[in-house]
Amino acid sequence: MSAVDQAHMARALELARKGLYSTHPNPRVGCVIVKDGQVIGEGWHVRAGEPHAEVHALRQAGDAARGATAYVTLEPCSHFGRTPPCADALVKAGVARVVAAMQDPNPQVAGQGLRRLAEAGIEVACGVLEAEAREVNGGFIKRMETGLPFVRVKLAMSLDGRTAMASGESQWITGAAARRAVQRLRARSSVVLSGADTVLLDAARLTVRPDELGLDAEQTALAAARQPLRVLVDGRLRVPLGAAFYQAGPALVASCAERDGFAGEGRELLVLPGADGHVDLAKLLAELGARGANEVLVEAGPRLAGAFARLGLVDEYLIFIAPKLLGSSARPLLELPLEKMAEARALKIADIRAVGDDWLVTARPV
Amino acid sequence: MSAVDQAHMARALELARKGLYSTHPNPRVGCVIVKDGQVIGEGWHVRAGEPHAEVHALRQAGDAARGATAYVTLEPCSHFGRTPPCADALVKAGVARVVAAMQDPNPQVAGQGLRRLAEAGIEVACGVLEAEAREVNGGFIKRMETGLPFVRVKLAMSLDGRTAMASGESQWITGAAARRAVQRLRARSSVVLSGADTVLLDAARLTVRPDELGLDAEQTALAAARQPLRVLVDGRLRVPLGAAFYQAGPALVASCAERDGFAGEGRELLVLPGADGHVDLAKLLAELGARGANEVLVEAGPRLAGAFARLGLVDEYLIFIAPKLLGSSARPLLELPLEKMAEARALKIADIRAVGDDWLVTARPV
Repeated sequence: MSAVDQAHMARALELARKGLYSTHPNPRVGCVIVKDGQVIGEGWHVRAGEPHAEVHALRQAGDAARGATAYVTLEPCSHFGRTPPCADALVKAGVARVVAAMQDPNPQVAGQGLRRLAEAGIEVACGVLEAEAREVNGGFIKRMETGLPFVRVKLAMSLDGRTAMASGESQWITGAAARRAVQRLRARSSVVLSGADTVLLDAARLTVRPDELGLDAEQTALAAARQPLRVLVDGRLRVPLGAAFYQAGPALVASCAERDGFAGEGRELLVLPGADGHVDLAKLLAELGARGANEVLVEAGPRLAGAFARLGLVDEYLIFIAPKLLGSSARPLLELPLEKMAEARALKIADIRAVGDDWLVTARPV
Repeated sequence: MSAVDQAHMARALELARKGLYSTHPNPRVGCVIVKDGQVIGEGWHVRAGEPHAEVHALRQAGDAARGATAYVTLEPCSHFGRTPPCADALVKAGVARVVAAMQDPNPQVAGQGLRRLAEAGIEVACGVLEAEAREVNGGFIKRMETGLPFVRVKLAMSLDGRTAMASGESQWITGAAARRAVQRLRARSSVVLSGADTVLLDAARLTVRPDELGLDAEQTALAAARQPLRVLVDGRLRVPLGAAFYQAGPALVASCAERDGFAGEGRELLVLPGADGHVDLAKLLAELGARGANEVLVEAGPRLAGAFARLGLVDEYLIFIAPKLLGSSARPLLELPLEKMAEARALKIADIRAVGDDWLVTARPV
């Protein structure tokens, strides 16, 4: 694991991130092929059904791949999926060494791709920049390991922890840069999930608007080609079919009861009654995972976001903080009634960064 | 204003900051004397009544000061205070050039020290690293310009903007590193100000505990030699004289009404009734400014801190954020009832930094 290996893997990760908005339900993967210190091939996985990163890189390298080192951000696959196994392609191309950032996260296949390479006489290494590689595919990894998607809860609050005035007045707490960041969060997600309160009060559509992403032309085009699945939690089907949300495209609706004639025109109804009269959110996530959702972005009001928090279903909070005070009459961040300090939910702040005049805190439960 | 000038001024500012905990009510000032590119004298003001920075530096330089350049973080004084004017000392030592970071902030004397130097044939420059120099003495500058101290409101909250459970349970929201940072904030302040709620509920003493400062031996000794003035806002004199707060040393108490026999044993009573039945906080700050207070640290509960916010008396919020959720039943950050978004108080976040597992946000009203 030399500094040279790390530098090439860092480039492979850069390539992997180009697929941030397009590889769903596949992982983002990058590959760099190096011979005599020179990069002779680069590739990244663009979208499901199209060639994997290794294949692009090998094509670019051509015959020069013989005797070269391949850096891949994820263990090369060893099974036939929609494309033939990448491990075989690497063997066939005659590469001498394969360095992977991490093993395949699926516990049932982990290590098999590397084993196949080693059996073919290729020198194999694994674990270079693994933490960075895991970060790129947190959702895919969680789904492979548990069947569930990675759940991000996006919140926007004032510096005193409020989301809206008591009257409900709330538009534009955060600035334009934060709104662009939210658009990018939607675009990278498999699913954008909201509740009836938000859809009714804010007339939210929860779509990706490509011109508001603030990305370059290549990334904008990739994001524009795929809208995330929009999921609405509406236990009593309060949102009328004429609402902006339904007019904006297909949607999956999770409810407590069936209603005749509700489905159709891109609407799918999922009946998931929970024990407490609310939609069973854990079951909903399992269903989304089964449908291939890697990353779920929850953009909801204090009640639904609070329910995810109460049930321990949140992997990451993304809290946009606007530099203003909304005061003590204003609405809380989360409906999360706790009585004792001992019940307080412990988080670890992973990152804080400026986003325009606002700040974004990334925090994860510990 | 060359890069060389900036480098020497940066060193002078480093020296000035050594007086962070000890110069009250004077400003923190540092001085570097340079000849032929070599530093031949350094000095900083340690405490009121003792020599100014320039005098220390000139002593160290000795006869070599003749023809040298002196870098001072504040315009040298031109008047007799507790020590003779530094401008005269610089003239007498024969320095050829004086570079000041900023003018004397007192509008009635600003520029007179530099003028005296120029009249003596010394080359004079002003305005090198001025923003940094103003930062070191924000409180002194505000007091010179307005008569009022610089008011910092220190708050500690959970990530969802709460300070305590509804029951009042609140101890140890933040970690050890944040508590050390608060000790240093107290130690640098002229005044630590609190309210009856905090003193009664938390048995707060609001003293500086030298062993908890986390400073080196020199700085710890300087801080230990001076306790900030403890000011208690207690409109109805609810805090009993036996409370830990009164037992911990001298205190100034601001109240709405006189009480016979209250003063004594280091207690001073200041009667400042306001229009609304509360202590007149603006008058209290004016009184503290008149007594030489540069920096006031408000460590109070949501009611008193909220009152400072409502009255527009806050220069800086220091918000320690603990990575936990206390939930929506918990107490608010500030009692600040606002109805409309248009009333929201706009802040500018000047800094966010990690303090142990917690985070410190510095925000200023705009």
